[in-house]
Amino acid sequence: MCMKRVPKSPLRDRLATNLRVERAKLGWSQERLAQEASLNRTYLSAIERSEQNISIDNLWRLSQALQIPAEVLLTSRAADK
Amino acid sequence: MCMKRVPKSPLRDRLATNLRVERAKLGWSQERLAQEASLNRTYLSAIERSEQNISIDNLWRLSQALQIPAEVLLTSRAADK
Repeated sequence: MCMKRVPKSPLRDRLATNLRVERAKLGWSQERLAQEASLNRTYLSAIERSEQNISIDNLWRLSQALQIPAEVLLTSRAADK
Repeated sequence: MCMKRVPKSPLRDRLATNLRVERAKLGWSQERLAQEASLNRTYLSAIERSEQNISIDNLWRLSQALQIPAEVLLTSRAADK
């Protein structure tokens, strides 16, 4: 089977934007969010630069920490809500 | 830093259910969906059993293959739509 090579999905950019917006609303640093979500700060920083292909289990941790539904973190409109 | 051990996130179950529902609507086998999304059939089978902690890039592939927004695949209500 031919496995197509694919570029980064748009979901990375949406998530990166939404995380930054939601973090700003709370006045949280990356370190604070990383701690709340039990993730490494360097890893979180890479997610916010669209450099990490995050798993849905880690997406869940971030959604729980921010109290935002996981699916909302993947939409391109979280900033409006 | 203490990294809490966490169980599988509920997102796995939501995605598993939604994939099975959407695949059934289209009358597609796992093999067909795997091909359309350029994923391995065994991998897809594990996703549908909530055994795989899928990445958002692979979630994107599935959403593109099914023509369903990725965020909808992570909600607990795709069956209603």
